[in-house]
Amino acid sequence: MKLTINRNTFMNELSTAQRAISSKTTIPILTGVKIVLTTEGLSLTGSNADISIETFLSASDEKANLTIEKTGAIVLQSRFFGEIIRKLPEDMFTLEVLENNQVAITSGAAEFVVNGLDAENYPHLPVIDENNQLKIPVRVLNKIISETGFAVSMHESRPILTGVHFILSNSELLAVATDSHRLSQRVIPVENAVEDFDIVIPGKSLLELSRSFKDEEELVEVSIMENQVLFKTKTMYFYSRLLEGKYPDTNRLIPNSFNTEIEFNVPALLSAIERASLLSHEGRNNIVKLSISSDEVTIYGNSPEIGNVQEELTYLKVTGDPLEISFNPDYMKDALKAFGAIDVVVKFISPIRPFTLEPVDSDISFIQLITPVRTN
Amino acid sequence: MKLTINRNTFMNELSTAQRAISSKTTIPILTGVKIVLTTEGLSLTGSNADISIETFLSASDEKANLTIEKTGAIVLQSRFFGEIIRKLPEDMFTLEVLENNQVAITSGAAEFVVNGLDAENYPHLPVIDENNQLKIPVRVLNKIISETGFAVSMHESRPILTGVHFILSNSELLAVATDSHRLSQRVIPVENAVEDFDIVIPGKSLLELSRSFKDEEELVEVSIMENQVLFKTKTMYFYSRLLEGKYPDTNRLIPNSFNTEIEFNVPALLSAIERASLLSHEGRNNIVKLSISSDEVTIYGNSPEIGNVQEELTYLKVTGDPLEISFNPDYMKDALKAFGAIDVVVKFISPIRPFTLEPVDSDISFIQLITPVRTN
Repeated sequence: MKLTINRNTFMNELSTAQRAISSKTTIPILTGVKIVLTTEGLSLTGSNADISIETFLSASDEKANLTIEKTGAIVLQSRFFGEIIRKLPEDMFTLEVLENNQVAITSGAAEFVVNGLDAENYPHLPVIDENNQLKIPVRVLNKIISETGFAVSMHESRPILTGVHFILSNSELLAVATDSHRLSQRVIPVENAVEDFDIVIPGKSLLELSRSFKDEEELVEVSIMENQVLFKTKTMYFYSRLLEGKYPDTNRLIPNSFNTEIEFNVPALLSAIERASLLSHEGRNNIVKLSISSDEVTIYGNSPEIGNVQEELTYLKVTGDPLEISFNPDYMKDALKAFGAIDVVVKFISPIRPFTLEPVDSDISFIQLITPVRTN
Repeated sequence: MKLTINRNTFMNELSTAQRAISSKTTIPILTGVKIVLTTEGLSLTGSNADISIETFLSASDEKANLTIEKTGAIVLQSRFFGEIIRKLPEDMFTLEVLENNQVAITSGAAEFVVNGLDAENYPHLPVIDENNQLKIPVRVLNKIISETGFAVSMHESRPILTGVHFILSNSELLAVATDSHRLSQRVIPVENAVEDFDIVIPGKSLLELSRSFKDEEELVEVSIMENQVLFKTKTMYFYSRLLEGKYPDTNRLIPNSFNTEIEFNVPALLSAIERASLLSHEGRNNIVKLSISSDEVTIYGNSPEIGNVQEELTYLKVTGDPLEISFNPDYMKDALKAFGAIDVVVKFISPIRPFTLEPVDSDISFIQLITPVRTN
């Protein structure tokens, strides 16, 4: 293998493949990046137990300025290789496989010779049937991930809850995540109906996926196998394992009749919650109290050691019974951030029953649920 | 005490005073910031075992928009107080001491009440005779600190070496630091001759001092007492303890005859050293090798596991004997960064004797010394 290429373009591809490479792996070859050069172009692959990323750079890509002298493949230790490329003196560099898997990296007067590994020993990526595909814009997928991914469980005690549950049926894609204290569910319409599915994708995989996309306007093709999902764009194949097991029936958790409803502008409410949580974070219980009456809505935070805070909240509309309810402000902050700068309606049943948050704009099918904290 | 003030201006003062406040202190009141309001203005004080910082904001400062309703003083837990101020909803806020050292902080609809401490219990700062002063521009002081401070020892085994040695005599200010592996010495002329001094200031204090200055064009007044130094600007008093003990005679360490001399452009050499050190960092010994002959200068880095690098260096001029010498590239990188984008001459005696680096421009009295590593 021998090629000459633009350093920045290569670095860009490498950092995408590196998202899947962990230095903690127990399989030595997986600390490496697999480099494959064909007459069509250059592909880089990184992989760990959960995800694999394969990038592709076309031989005709102008920015890459790729010269292919000899096709071939090699695996190079990822971290070092990246640091070397980053510090090379010139805009272009040459990579050449010598004997015994040694690799020469030259740029200007600098000549590195590093030890590589035989690409034949690199594990094969899953083979996924690409007939059964869902196509959606990257922007839409990224939005669903940011609207639900934060609500997955961080604890391995119930592994299935560390993923986001995706259900495709009736030309609708539903995504829901819960850590059993709060829940976030988003439904979007899907054109081009394809075969229905019901899968659970690890939250961490989705986060890396979101960060790996480079063009929000592109379409991504989603293909599913028994225990793997592939997200495919023009320049990247992103594989993730699926979580096994039955996701709980979250539909029955969402209440549908309420006694108190109040509308807020999200950024205003979020700022007030952030202030109230400054003191609650220091208390024994991380809770803030919301008090709703027909003419005044107030939030309280308290820490016996530091002091207390109260703030009369600006709201858009309130209906129903007066209420005092306490909750973890961190769940509220996460929920509000997922909505962005819109108006939401918060609906309560009683101080001990979960409450919901939804956009005032009823065209958007997005609901969040937060379990309150009992204070007596 | 009761005042109303612009939040950003106050935050700016507070973050300066907070540089001296450590959450690790064993003296509870020192986790607090002391706030003193007089008819002249507002002062904030933070302090730890090594440094104390007192900021002053004049009542007539326009940006502060300060309204003094009642003078007084209080101590508030620094970290929380800062977080509260940062998150207040409006541009202005009011601070009022209530009964029992409780303090109300109000801004818009948000009302915090936090527990303060009696300002009478805050330790007194040292009283320093301000007659014996050296005045230099902040810019010049900052430059000396950046040129020498990096070379202080990080180890407490010889505490005196953790400081920078400053000697004022014959209208010259000399600053020198060494960790016994490398040394950096800078001498600048000083106008307005004042009483000579010979002090050692902790490197950490100097770093904080540099970061605390806001205006590089201001003059700073340096006053010295037996075990304290005060750096005074219009808006800040910065106190540091001095290190006790006798600083070693570094003058005798600097050689004055050499066998090989070579001139480099600093940024070009620095980039090459950074590349060579990529691999040396991974080896058992963190060393790179420099090979100098009359027609070629080459740097080598090597790690048995990863690989090796060699690079022919661009230099301006070489004279004297051929030489092969090995050294820790990190010391070389620090030294080169301290010079900035100038040309330097590196002078060698032999592979086992310390070598020096100096600006080619002989008007600048700045010398660095690095001890090589014996490789056999």
